[in-house]
Amino acid sequence: MPQRLDESAKGVFVIAPTPFREDGALDEASAERMTDAFLAAGASGLTILGVMGEAPKLDAEEARRFVSLVLRRVGGRVPVIVGVSAPGFAAMRALARASMEAGAAGVMIAPQSGLRGDDAVLSYMAGAAEAVGDAPWVLQDYPQLTGVHMSPDMVRRMAEAHPRLVMLKAEDWPGLDKITTLRRLSDEGRMRRLSILGGNGGLFLPEELERGADGIMTGYAVPEMLVRVCRLVAEGDRTAAHDLFDLHLPLIRTEHQPGLGLAVRKYVLRRRGIIACEALRAPGPKLSAETRAEVDWLLDRLSRRDRAVRL
Amino acid sequence: MPQRLDESAKGVFVIAPTPFREDGALDEASAERMTDAFLAAGASGLTILGVMGEAPKLDAEEARRFVSLVLRRVGGRVPVIVGVSAPGFAAMRALARASMEAGAAGVMIAPQSGLRGDDAVLSYMAGAAEAVGDAPWVLQDYPQLTGVHMSPDMVRRMAEAHPRLVMLKAEDWPGLDKITTLRRLSDEGRMRRLSILGGNGGLFLPEELERGADGIMTGYAVPEMLVRVCRLVAEGDRTAAHDLFDLHLPLIRTEHQPGLGLAVRKYVLRRRGIIACEALRAPGPKLSAETRAEVDWLLDRLSRRDRAVRL
Amino acid sequence: MPQRLDESAKGVFVIAPTPFREDGALDEASAERMTDAFLAAGASGLTILGVMGEAPKLDAEEARRFVSLVLRRVGGRVPVIVGVSAPGFAAMRALARASMEAGAAGVMIAPQSGLRGDDAVLSYMAGAAEAVGDAPWVLQDYPQLTGVHMSPDMVRRMAEAHPRLVMLKAEDWPGLDKITTLRRLSDEGRMRRLSILGGNGGLFLPEELERGADGIMTGYAVPEMLVRVCRLVAEGDRTAAHDLFDLHLPLIRTEHQPGLGLAVRKYVLRRRGIIACEALRAPGPKLSAETRAEVDWLLDRLSRRDRAVRL
Amino acid sequence: MPQRLDESAKGVFVIAPTPFREDGALDEASAERMTDAFLAAGASGLTILGVMGEAPKLDAEEARRFVSLVLRRVGGRVPVIVGVSAPGFAAMRALARASMEAGAAGVMIAPQSGLRGDDAVLSYMAGAAEAVGDAPWVLQDYPQLTGVHMSPDMVRRMAEAHPRLVMLKAEDWPGLDKITTLRRLSDEGRMRRLSILGGNGGLFLPEELERGADGIMTGYAVPEMLVRVCRLVAEGDRTAAHDLFDLHLPLIRTEHQPGLGLAVRKYVLRRRGIIACEALRAPGPKLSAETRAEVDWLLDRLSRRDRAVRL
Repeated sequence: MPQRLDESAKGVFVIAPTPFREDGALDEASAERMTDAFLAAGASGLTILGVMGEAPKLDAEEARRFVSLVLRRVGGRVPVIVGVSAPGFAAMRALARASMEAGAAGVMIAPQSGLRGDDAVLSYMAGAAEAVGDAPWVLQDYPQLTGVHMSPDMVRRMAEAHPRLVMLKAEDWPGLDKITTLRRLSDEGRMRRLSILGGNGGLFLPEELERGADGIMTGYAVPEMLVRVCRLVAEGDRTAAHDLFDLHLPLIRTEHQPGLGLAVRKYVLRRRGIIACEALRAPGPKLSAETRAEVDWLLDRLSRRDRAVRL
Repeated sequence: MPQRLDESAKGVFVIAPTPFREDGALDEASAERMTDAFLAAGASGLTILGVMGEAPKLDAEEARRFVSLVLRRVGGRVPVIVGVSAPGFAAMRALARASMEAGAAGVMIAPQSGLRGDDAVLSYMAGAAEAVGDAPWVLQDYPQLTGVHMSPDMVRRMAEAHPRLVMLKAEDWPGLDKITTLRRLSDEGRMRRLSILGGNGGLFLPEELERGADGIMTGYAVPEMLVRVCRLVAEGDRTAAHDLFDLHLPLIRTEHQPGLGLAVRKYVLRRRGIIACEALRAPGPKLSAETRAEVDWLLDRLSRRDRAVRL
Repeated sequence: MPQRLDESAKGVFVIAPTPFREDGALDEASAERMTDAFLAAGASGLTILGVMGEAPKLDAEEARRFVSLVLRRVGGRVPVIVGVSAPGFAAMRALARASMEAGAAGVMIAPQSGLRGDDAVLSYMAGAAEAVGDAPWVLQDYPQLTGVHMSPDMVRRMAEAHPRLVMLKAEDWPGLDKITTLRRLSDEGRMRRLSILGGNGGLFLPEELERGADGIMTGYAVPEMLVRVCRLVAEGDRTAAHDLFDLHLPLIRTEHQPGLGLAVRKYVLRRRGIIACEALRAPGPKLSAETRAEVDWLLDRLSRRDRAVRL
Repeated sequence: MPQRLDESAKGVFVIAPTPFREDGALDEASAERMTDAFLAAGASGLTILGVMGEAPKLDAEEARRFVSLVLRRVGGRVPVIVGVSAPGFAAMRALARASMEAGAAGVMIAPQSGLRGDDAVLSYMAGAAEAVGDAPWVLQDYPQLTGVHMSPDMVRRMAEAHPRLVMLKAEDWPGLDKITTLRRLSDEGRMRRLSILGGNGGLFLPEELERGADGIMTGYAVPEMLVRVCRLVAEGDRTAAHDLFDLHLPLIRTEHQPGLGLAVRKYVLRRRGIIACEALRAPGPKLSAETRAEVDWLLDRLSRRDRAVRL
């Protein structure tokens, strides 16, 4: 019986890209190698078919195939979350059901772009919560992409209304004060405690943890660092956490460029031998020779300064 | 051998909604009755799976089923255009190929939301043109939805670069001067002449035709009027054209409300006995009792003032 | 002692453009003639320095000069509302104070573009309400421009929090159901009754009144019609109201084009002899010869069909 | 005779905030102290009344007073650029003239938000270039704020059309490849060489310089670092440049938060004793106690790791 996601989730949930071959087909061998690498890096969970997974460019059959491949490879060792955001609730329902039946631990939902006003957002999320049925779900708070802003009080109201909402992916920017407010609400007994994982590529990882996040869900291409920073903060070694984080910040920043970040990540994963090919499905950006050289420089610096990772 | 769309296309291309049953399933009987009604109304062509067709809420199998059902019912009497806009070129390619094999006359493509700058738009459309292969295609210019603005010169450049671009769906707002400029360019031999069909729910139908549009592609729920106005303008009877148009303008205006328009149209089509059920797939708007009463009032007025249509 | 705006306001508040001379200077003679014309048309009030008044293109001295000129000309016969939206509360405070001292009846405020979430909107409006001091104020609900959506419940909360909020300019689109909901709330004693005036160029004037609006605040260039439709609806003659409205709808529609509408309005006002020059301050749109000819055609039709107005 | 900005400009142009007192009034003493501090830090120039200078919250008299105060204090030692973006060209003209007469070296212009399509942008900038008269000007390329994207070819066309365009503030994001393309164009003789300064808070300073930027124009609150990184890159010591940059990156990142960044910068400047009060004019964000503590922690770390700056 596969594990189900709940409010106690913590640590690093690695968001996995979807690897393709040069000809654009799903690269199953890379998907398996990538799954192994993320588990070896210490991931507490995986998230697939998120924004970063090029999910809208997969057809329904490919999406199901990728889900079941990753789930099989993980073999229940860690929970796997499947992104199910879709233009219609019917598609959301179908993908959520198929994913849970295949062994997913939960699903992730972002409010649809273009929702107008808090009430419309709450109403949309109620429909989505109904659509995913009895799957535990993650609320993705990512206004840079959706244009939808959710106040701490809205999160509180959703937590009250939807018992299967178990996790917040906190990706507002700036968003640190929101984490603080939500933690205060649950510490004071004014809302149910959710698992809160940070995001934004890890750009504020130490601060997120210090504000009370339980971990992070992001796709940074060297997740080993995320795991170690989480551990150092948990151990109370703030200076060591920042020291390690700072070594990686230049690369984090380079991966955090809108529209370009996924291409950088796939390039790093390919250079690390984790996936075979860095191609995105069209339409998508390509890295210039200059950008590759900059990433190479950063990786080279990093490999000399952080001896614990193999780059 | 089914007809292929070309630059000589003119008249009224009715954009068809996708009819659903109360339970959300595709309503095939309504789809057939609707196809018959639009042809009986004098449509020169049909457009399906457009923005108005709730295409993103269909799964791939439903989309293919709806396309083949409509094509079979039309039986080659008029050209049918299939909207193939999709997040990835692979899906666009698959739907275009399937549609053309099933007998479509051409496909319609809108540039993706979020493209930045003219060059990015031209590059995207080049990729899309490649993806749809040898299908004749319609460029949908609808910046209110896509946020992408295309100048007359960009349209000219696309017409030069892509020989299978045969039609412009001119839906910019305000957009009448753009039609004038494009017509002037082709009249002066400075660009290949495309078929230009207006849009925007018919809100500027007489003006579009007077500026040189070859007709209109829209989903106004009383397409008989569109056909008659096109004929009156073609016959040079400008006053009669405006007189008829003005009778329908209050309803056109009511259908042209962002986010609500499709629900109004389906309500009118249901009231006219053309489709069995006005439901949109979730998430989608519902008409209030007050809005229904207003539409009833407008239809009642219209049926007394325009005796030529059965409402 | 000049009158102060209160919740009993009703009828037609004409939004006045700011007339300029060909050389771009404020045209004071036209401003006086325009003021006279709007009062002669039956305006219950005037609104100046709104979005339509090119207020951001005036410097502070010009704005004050225009306000005092109009106020002097009106001479207390009707209330005058001054738009005071500004990037900073200091400027808002200064313009509100100067306007009230010069004899304005109240001020109008729209939430700033880019506010994120209901709480941010409420907090911004609280600051604005404080800034305008003891001036009665109008809440401008115009999401097409501001990107800010305000639910009926937010309006209710603002009405409770701010006793000097006396009027809602209801310009959401679609927005009829919002008027119905707000009226129901005050009819059922669940919120203080505000004056509600419609907007959107009059595009839904009969429906707005039938939903419970107390009138309309808009800049349609033939305000005589607005006054008569309000009277006909008040008298219960719905058919006559719609008949008259329908005659003007083609011109209303032409004035309601985003980015172009003000230029059309100034052209009509110039053709009617109300202002001397149709120029907008740069940067601003210019009407093409084709657009002018279309407006001429519409005015010509209208003058033959609505004998009660001089066009 | 004050110096005029030209294409040879390079180094660090510090964008100065506008200091206010607790009561919201312009803080002239802080403005003078800040000017001195930026010159002491090695600034090659200053930029005032930019986006960061809260310019829209100043009235015209305050803006002129602040400009002349800074210019007097600088005393011609470095060029001062004044931001003149405004809703109307008349205001832009007036501020540009007043600034140049007071001794500014040039002005900075960003395209207006909401311009649609490349042609509209070029046409707007032509009007703006005419409005600023004979002032040398800087094109601010900041699409995150304006929503306007300008391709390298558009910059090339503006450089050709407007001889007084002498500098590009390159603030697109991602934007490094644009710098490379523009440099290649001028190196190959296909466009006039402009001065290019980077931006985005310094987030990609080493890369911008390596791509060919002549320096950076930004408001990072420790501009000494920017000056030293520029010098190290100029001296060819890439490793030392990155080593120094990396020490500051955590603070750069914290200042680069949309909507919050200016408040962080004013806090740092206040803590450094450069300005007396960190207040922004309302409406504006306030830092939480947690954010202040995080900035304190970062400054403390930085002061121990970069001994060359006094924090």
